[in-house]
Amino acid sequence: MDQIPVAVLGATGSVGQRFISLLDSHPWFKVVALAASDRSIGQKFSDACRWVLNEPMPEYARDMIVVPASPDSVQAKIVFSALHNEIAKDLEPQFAKAGAAVCSNASSYRREEDVPLLLPEVNAGHIQLVKQQRINRGWSGCILTNPNCTSAGLTVALKALDDSFGVKKVFAVSLQALTGAGYPGVPSLDIIDNVIPNINGEEEKVEWEPRKMLGKWNGNKIDLSNMRFSAHTNRVAVIDGHTVCVSVELARPTDPETAEAILRAYAAPESVRELPSSPRPVISVRNEADRPQPRLDRLTGKGMTTVVGRVRRDPLLDLKFVVLSHNTIRGAAGGSIYNAELLVNEGLL
Amino acid sequence: MDQIPVAVLGATGSVGQRFISLLDSHPWFKVVALAASDRSIGQKFSDACRWVLNEPMPEYARDMIVVPASPDSVQAKIVFSALHNEIAKDLEPQFAKAGAAVCSNASSYRREEDVPLLLPEVNAGHIQLVKQQRINRGWSGCILTNPNCTSAGLTVALKALDDSFGVKKVFAVSLQALTGAGYPGVPSLDIIDNVIPNINGEEEKVEWEPRKMLGKWNGNKIDLSNMRFSAHTNRVAVIDGHTVCVSVELARPTDPETAEAILRAYAAPESVRELPSSPRPVISVRNEADRPQPRLDRLTGKGMTTVVGRVRRDPLLDLKFVVLSHNTIRGAAGGSIYNAELLVNEGLL
Amino acid sequence: MDQIPVAVLGATGSVGQRFISLLDSHPWFKVVALAASDRSIGQKFSDACRWVLNEPMPEYARDMIVVPASPDSVQAKIVFSALHNEIAKDLEPQFAKAGAAVCSNASSYRREEDVPLLLPEVNAGHIQLVKQQRINRGWSGCILTNPNCTSAGLTVALKALDDSFGVKKVFAVSLQALTGAGYPGVPSLDIIDNVIPNINGEEEKVEWEPRKMLGKWNGNKIDLSNMRFSAHTNRVAVIDGHTVCVSVELARPTDPETAEAILRAYAAPESVRELPSSPRPVISVRNEADRPQPRLDRLTGKGMTTVVGRVRRDPLLDLKFVVLSHNTIRGAAGGSIYNAELLVNEGLL
Amino acid sequence: MDQIPVAVLGATGSVGQRFISLLDSHPWFKVVALAASDRSIGQKFSDACRWVLNEPMPEYARDMIVVPASPDSVQAKIVFSALHNEIAKDLEPQFAKAGAAVCSNASSYRREEDVPLLLPEVNAGHIQLVKQQRINRGWSGCILTNPNCTSAGLTVALKALDDSFGVKKVFAVSLQALTGAGYPGVPSLDIIDNVIPNINGEEEKVEWEPRKMLGKWNGNKIDLSNMRFSAHTNRVAVIDGHTVCVSVELARPTDPETAEAILRAYAAPESVRELPSSPRPVISVRNEADRPQPRLDRLTGKGMTTVVGRVRRDPLLDLKFVVLSHNTIRGAAGGSIYNAELLVNEGLL
Repeated sequence: MDQIPVAVLGATGSVGQRFISLLDSHPWFKVVALAASDRSIGQKFSDACRWVLNEPMPEYARDMIVVPASPDSVQAKIVFSALHNEIAKDLEPQFAKAGAAVCSNASSYRREEDVPLLLPEVNAGHIQLVKQQRINRGWSGCILTNPNCTSAGLTVALKALDDSFGVKKVFAVSLQALTGAGYPGVPSLDIIDNVIPNINGEEEKVEWEPRKMLGKWNGNKIDLSNMRFSAHTNRVAVIDGHTVCVSVELARPTDPETAEAILRAYAAPESVRELPSSPRPVISVRNEADRPQPRLDRLTGKGMTTVVGRVRRDPLLDLKFVVLSHNTIRGAAGGSIYNAELLVNEGLL
Repeated sequence: MDQIPVAVLGATGSVGQRFISLLDSHPWFKVVALAASDRSIGQKFSDACRWVLNEPMPEYARDMIVVPASPDSVQAKIVFSALHNEIAKDLEPQFAKAGAAVCSNASSYRREEDVPLLLPEVNAGHIQLVKQQRINRGWSGCILTNPNCTSAGLTVALKALDDSFGVKKVFAVSLQALTGAGYPGVPSLDIIDNVIPNINGEEEKVEWEPRKMLGKWNGNKIDLSNMRFSAHTNRVAVIDGHTVCVSVELARPTDPETAEAILRAYAAPESVRELPSSPRPVISVRNEADRPQPRLDRLTGKGMTTVVGRVRRDPLLDLKFVVLSHNTIRGAAGGSIYNAELLVNEGLL
Repeated sequence: MDQIPVAVLGATGSVGQRFISLLDSHPWFKVVALAASDRSIGQKFSDACRWVLNEPMPEYARDMIVVPASPDSVQAKIVFSALHNEIAKDLEPQFAKAGAAVCSNASSYRREEDVPLLLPEVNAGHIQLVKQQRINRGWSGCILTNPNCTSAGLTVALKALDDSFGVKKVFAVSLQALTGAGYPGVPSLDIIDNVIPNINGEEEKVEWEPRKMLGKWNGNKIDLSNMRFSAHTNRVAVIDGHTVCVSVELARPTDPETAEAILRAYAAPESVRELPSSPRPVISVRNEADRPQPRLDRLTGKGMTTVVGRVRRDPLLDLKFVVLSHNTIRGAAGGSIYNAELLVNEGLL
Repeated sequence: MDQIPVAVLGATGSVGQRFISLLDSHPWFKVVALAASDRSIGQKFSDACRWVLNEPMPEYARDMIVVPASPDSVQAKIVFSALHNEIAKDLEPQFAKAGAAVCSNASSYRREEDVPLLLPEVNAGHIQLVKQQRINRGWSGCILTNPNCTSAGLTVALKALDDSFGVKKVFAVSLQALTGAGYPGVPSLDIIDNVIPNINGEEEKVEWEPRKMLGKWNGNKIDLSNMRFSAHTNRVAVIDGHTVCVSVELARPTDPETAEAILRAYAAPESVRELPSSPRPVISVRNEADRPQPRLDRLTGKGMTTVVGRVRRDPLLDLKFVVLSHNTIRGAAGGSIYNAELLVNEGLL
């Protein structure tokens, strides 16, 4: 199979870097363009980019010349967008109009009725919205979005429980990693020996995005789930990996052992089980008293697996547990790539 | 006034050190003995102790010779106990029997019906239990306890709200500091770039201890509060200061502004407002979007003040907010000293 | 005695904050103005400033209105400058011309021949340069400078050794705290689980500034010391307190015990021993195998003391040891205040 | 080729874990036994081991049953020793006598005249000592050692310079990672917001071990290098990767550019260039002003490459630079495996 030409928009930022790293050995996709803001254009990527990942910069990217983030400069069938929201708002439709499939990590279009908000292992069927989006907007391309990094793992775990027990209420408190804020992001004096008990706009996202992803595609649009949420979001001194403490009320209460078995057995829709970025397993359930932990568990399933632990009874609702998910892999770049694979697999590219 | 001779049991540990530091310039109390385990006995304190506080070791303690933790070796009217729970269980009654007022940070006797579990700014009246304790047990001394470090600040905030609005349910997720685990405590490889989503036995304490402190003294015993709790407890890379994300359901719902005003206006019972360790103010309410933060706010009111911020509506219950409290001052040694001051002030020494 | 009116320039930055904190209860000085850049002017200080110190903002500063950093707006006999170097270069002479004594933490004038670079416990006599400065420049005020934060503690230790043994060569490697870079300063992703092995311009300062401070005032100018230096400077994940590993070659070699005794006995020139900010002691020598440590020792002598430890033989030169000094107290704001006290004490204000 | 059966002694410790991780997909070696202390024997490895690496535990190891660390229980041609020094001292000779090649990370035998201390890219020829060792001791097996983790990278860089310019004196100050101290190792309260300016016994090792590795095999024994060293060693809040600030005096002084070219061009002896663990490249030279950094550069060349940066003139000696090396890969387990590959390649197994 010929490789599909892809591009990364916002390539020099921390999520852009993660795209570049994950696409290094991708079996379907070949990076043909790295686009960024004015300051970097015309420079070699290795000169333009302050690399912040633990893993070294892939060789293929080092000598690529950074190009402008415009459809004229970027000849790619798929563009992965790590753009800031305001910029994404303007630019992503330009690419979609020009025929590219935009797999976006930005929040700008997540709430649009005809734009799918995707976690393939949860709601692969929502990809059908793309057809409607093309009709509505007259685009030959399209925009696909993935959720904010905290909602990603949380929603995977909720989906498994919801299918079997019906989740009614969700109380979620996050301890989020620094890479979620980009680079330079959080000043060191704000986080060494400290916690920041707020992330702007994040609680609203966590309280809404899972409802769309867990909603039903009725052939025309997504009916939002009736699940109700309360979220507190915090920043802690962790490089990668968001931890979320969750309590849930169930329509059909169960015991922790049964819930663990259901979580462990959760399988993605068949069409997305064997894609290059499919999480293997979708959910890993830990039995130790003190897991999951971000440093030790974030790379489970190459960072695509949702890790759940400490499933136990909740004195107010029904169950409590802890969810961990890699925020820049499953929760950002890896998720966008998985979405792109779904699009290709469905013949919608 | 002559100073009252006091002693510290478990003086070399991290809470013991905090006692020594806080008692440095105490107007009522004079440290006459530092007691610790066998290994240290007979050594100069400065040789026996691996000091872990940010503040230097007080001069008065450096040359004191460590003595055994037994009533024979310790001649003091008040003994502050920073002993481990199993040791406290045996030793504290020996001191109480021998006539000392034991102000304990250990959990061993917190649940005993005739032992007060005290936060003077919340339940100073519970000190009356001491009389009954002396009758029940035939002691001339007594045991007073303070709550675990996470319950301390949480309960102060709940008390203020409960008085005005009636708190029915509490969802609490903690981000706890390392000093809560003592020394050597948490290995560095467990917490750098990491979170530990569990603290053994802590959730049970947070779900029960506030109910005793918020309970009513009916002249005979404490009627536990009916408030219901769900707690998740986490360890994070912070030296001092426990942060707790809280959501509450109220009997008489209110708006965030009114709740803030009530919190800000909360006053301790009159008898404990002007003691040397009284928090000034009892509660500090922050208006910034990202406060309280442990590094910046833990020393508010010399570490005795409970700091509350981000008071806002909760989509599931009624209100959400964040509570911060210094875990080894208000939540441990400072709390025990405040309890001792209450005892003296009530003429119960 | 009436208090002397003083001002802080650059009041909202991290060194400015340290000035405000240290001046809170100063017996001689009263803060009458807080000046900062355009953005903050006209705001209450508590609104304009993102406070980053562990200690809470002093009450006196909270409601002061931030004024422009110009002689017209600031009526003070002494102005403490925490300005950035380029701004300091322009502004400080304006204040000196207008009659103020500028005690500056900026590097702009440290190398000027008629500007004293002061550590009172080392070279109080250099204050005499002020007279010449006034003649040369026609100022009624003056500019006094203190060294960069790494040179401060290092130079105090070298002075003690130089007096007794003659220091010829100095090899110095620093592990510097984050507050040295101001706020926002170092991004958290650059320093969690990391070291940055460079601080721009710092090595040159460490290799030159001690030579001026250890130089001799010959009645006309300072003859630079012939001591020779090699410095490596590194940033590490520490909030406050610079650690420096030092090896020295001596003209008259000695053993570690004698060197320790000399360091411990070092006294400041008599005129600066009893000022409000005088370090007590000037040098603290630790005997433990693993001290000094920044978190535990930086507040020795209220952060003004230089702490030395691990004095031992060096296989290449003569002695090795470790120096610790609080970078924003002894190495910045506290040093400037001590300089101001010296100026007042000498009748040169 | 049939895979060679190998074992790991001290498998549950942090270096043991690194061996297990690196041997996961080794082309020549197959792990047939994991041995540890009494406490773990008979348990499944995944139950016995508190895994501390960022990468998940390899699948192959999870269900292996931990066996005693004795020649009777371990049937392997090569045993990788991650034992503590005192235990290694007794056990390693037992394995060597029983016919195994012991590739040891312990320091117990590094100084023995007939035991090679190896960095294949530096002194592959020293492997010849094995023949003499077997004659001297009557062993069919042998003991090979690798240096302490700080000496590893330092010696690689010195070797390249020494070959071209003759290194006479070396001043080295390390900033060492936490994994060097094992698990539980350094308490978190000792290193968050802190530096520990000492590592027991480490400075002596850094001042001696490079002299053996850079020494000449004269056909009978190693003539130690005359290079002279002074070392300061520090622990910092880094998970993996030791940073060393180095200044050197050269017999034939050169400029930084030439030195960089020589470092960059350094090649391992031909026989060890194409082994599975050969560093590619041996030395990576960085040109940025602030590199190498442990988080960003430690995995260069899969953690086997020595990274050098900031090559510049030294005002006291000739050159200054910074060396970074992965302490548990190149400096421990990876180094031992490379040594084993050399042994096999030379037909000495």
